[in-house]
Amino acid sequence: MADLSAPAPTFARGLAGVTALESSICFIDGEKGELLYRGYDIDDLARNTTFEEVAYLLWKGALPTQAELDDLTAQLQAERTVPPDLLDHLRHHTPADAEPMAAMRTALSMLAAYDAESEDMSPEANYRKSIRLTAKLPTLVAAFDRIRKGKEVVAPLQEGSTAYDFLYMLNGERPGPAAEEIMDAALVLHAEHSLNASTFTARVIGSTLADIYSAITGAMGALKGPLHGGANIEVMETLLALDASGETAQAYVERKLAAKEKIMGIGHRVYKTLDPRATILRELLRGLSEEKGEMKWLEMSDTIRTTVKERKGLDANVDFYSASVYYLLGIETDLYTPIFAISRMTGWTAHLLEQWSDNALIRPRAQYTGPRGLTVTPLAERG
Amino acid sequence: MADLSAPAPTFARGLAGVTALESSICFIDGEKGELLYRGYDIDDLARNTTFEEVAYLLWKGALPTQAELDDLTAQLQAERTVPPDLLDHLRHHTPADAEPMAAMRTALSMLAAYDAESEDMSPEANYRKSIRLTAKLPTLVAAFDRIRKGKEVVAPLQEGSTAYDFLYMLNGERPGPAAEEIMDAALVLHAEHSLNASTFTARVIGSTLADIYSAITGAMGALKGPLHGGANIEVMETLLALDASGETAQAYVERKLAAKEKIMGIGHRVYKTLDPRATILRELLRGLSEEKGEMKWLEMSDTIRTTVKERKGLDANVDFYSASVYYLLGIETDLYTPIFAISRMTGWTAHLLEQWSDNALIRPRAQYTGPRGLTVTPLAERG
Repeated sequence: MADLSAPAPTFARGLAGVTALESSICFIDGEKGELLYRGYDIDDLARNTTFEEVAYLLWKGALPTQAELDDLTAQLQAERTVPPDLLDHLRHHTPADAEPMAAMRTALSMLAAYDAESEDMSPEANYRKSIRLTAKLPTLVAAFDRIRKGKEVVAPLQEGSTAYDFLYMLNGERPGPAAEEIMDAALVLHAEHSLNASTFTARVIGSTLADIYSAITGAMGALKGPLHGGANIEVMETLLALDASGETAQAYVERKLAAKEKIMGIGHRVYKTLDPRATILRELLRGLSEEKGEMKWLEMSDTIRTTVKERKGLDANVDFYSASVYYLLGIETDLYTPIFAISRMTGWTAHLLEQWSDNALIRPRAQYTGPRGLTVTPLAERG
Repeated sequence: MADLSAPAPTFARGLAGVTALESSICFIDGEKGELLYRGYDIDDLARNTTFEEVAYLLWKGALPTQAELDDLTAQLQAERTVPPDLLDHLRHHTPADAEPMAAMRTALSMLAAYDAESEDMSPEANYRKSIRLTAKLPTLVAAFDRIRKGKEVVAPLQEGSTAYDFLYMLNGERPGPAAEEIMDAALVLHAEHSLNASTFTARVIGSTLADIYSAITGAMGALKGPLHGGANIEVMETLLALDASGETAQAYVERKLAAKEKIMGIGHRVYKTLDPRATILRELLRGLSEEKGEMKWLEMSDTIRTTVKERKGLDANVDFYSASVYYLLGIETDLYTPIFAISRMTGWTAHLLEQWSDNALIRPRAQYTGPRGLTVTPLAERG
């Protein structure tokens, strides 16, 4: 049957090239390889600020003074504890082999039931909930990982940075300054990236005036998708496979290119040149590799990157070096995406606060391509 | 600072008027008040098919034969049971005053952990999971309601329609034919409505190739928003308040119009004329009111509708009469949106199956309106 539907004013498959909203949070110039949070270059932020400063910047639009930073840090530290019921849930109602992002999606959804402000849509309450979510997710991720390994849960500290406390809860011992600094920089680098699919999901859900837990639960679901989060897991699996098989990085690239297969961690939908975050992560990886006396992951990564760059003109993205960084920090590969979420929580919530400051329902159209004018045949006569 | 960002090709706030994708599931002509599922008029479907037939239609694109319907019905019946852990969770980790949509969002997210196919993205597995989700949500809603009232959970029947079994589990007694028929029609009427915010959310999440539980959990969050689901709760609260205060429906409308306030259940973003679903719901309400000997809700509703129509030219939407229908069926007002979700689960999952049959990441742009070129001032020098 013919398609009789009226033509729509604008048809953009996947909304490519369509601008859905205005935002003052993040600027990306994919041609130049430029990424700004609230006007500050990502390189400047990664070198000169901490994750807590960046969280404040994303939420409030300006970098904090010392007093403002102290205040936010104290609030984040105070909010790290999760309800005992949540730990019970992770212990007794979460299978040990649960997909970590699915487990964290459920845990974040559950948090709403223990937050007396969960349905309060005032800007003040939503800001407090943004702090709460950012403070509690590291505790949930670390508890999940320890419980599935049969270890005791480590309660959060009431001191120190998010990066420090997360590594402490994960490993059960206080991290050294190098590990803290690297984890902190990784959190800064992943905090925000404009309307990626998970942030867009959060804003679509938020645009119905649903509460922040609904929006963040949805964002977790989107980040779980292999086309969005998860690429650094595949990067690490590739590196581990090469290490195990003995195939050289060069031979691997040649084989993948010959088969016209994608090389994980290379190329980006937005960046046509080097992802600016990859440069910083490579530096961090170099320092960490030297400290650990384990250079092979950096060397394999560099060979893959250089070879693909020569052959295809494509460069590394944020996932390419973060894989080895997390690996050398001793973090399980399937926690890479939950760690991405720990960082991106700040960007998601900043976008929600912005969305609600001037809300408009986000609802595009579908172009109908099906039949019309059918009539129901009685059940007995169908066949 | 000036906005230096490059102009985007298309700017449509809230994506109004933008077509994001092609779909053969649902056609709406808001001017004519026409709603088609897979080419069939909603009026025809509501009068001549059941919810199970509509579920098949939405998923498969054609109405089932008797054999196909029997097969689907048997699968739905077999999948109604939920894992005992889920009931434990509702009993012991869900506060009795939990917001029902928040509780169901968590419960659906949890289901993934008990589904061995949760990460299987084959079309066959996703179809089985669509059946599973549609079968289990009524059980979860009914169990949640009974547990919070301190009643025993009623296990699902392995027979009868979704509507029949849901009312049975909710009330602990088998419903009469009239109640079943009305609940079934309500499920048919709410099953699908093109790219509303929750369906769009499901497709955005699904477009990252995240699993069906992630997408549905996000859709639940969007439906929870007062700009999307929930309008019929406010309709019923209005009717109950009028009944309690003694204010006439006419006086209520005059007062609201004078204050330029919105009247819940009247007007629709899409329909510029009568929402075709409202006509059928009014008929169902009339029959039910006569059966129960309780005409006041219908009469108040009719007065409100006629008065607003005369004054403002706006007509009733689907939420307007469904409120009284559910009320007369003895259902708690805060379950109206979870019941909406029971029905819409079929539409959400049909859209996900369609999305994955030809996937493209859904990712629009944001127009950057913030500063550029800022540099980090050392912390001690800020203030």
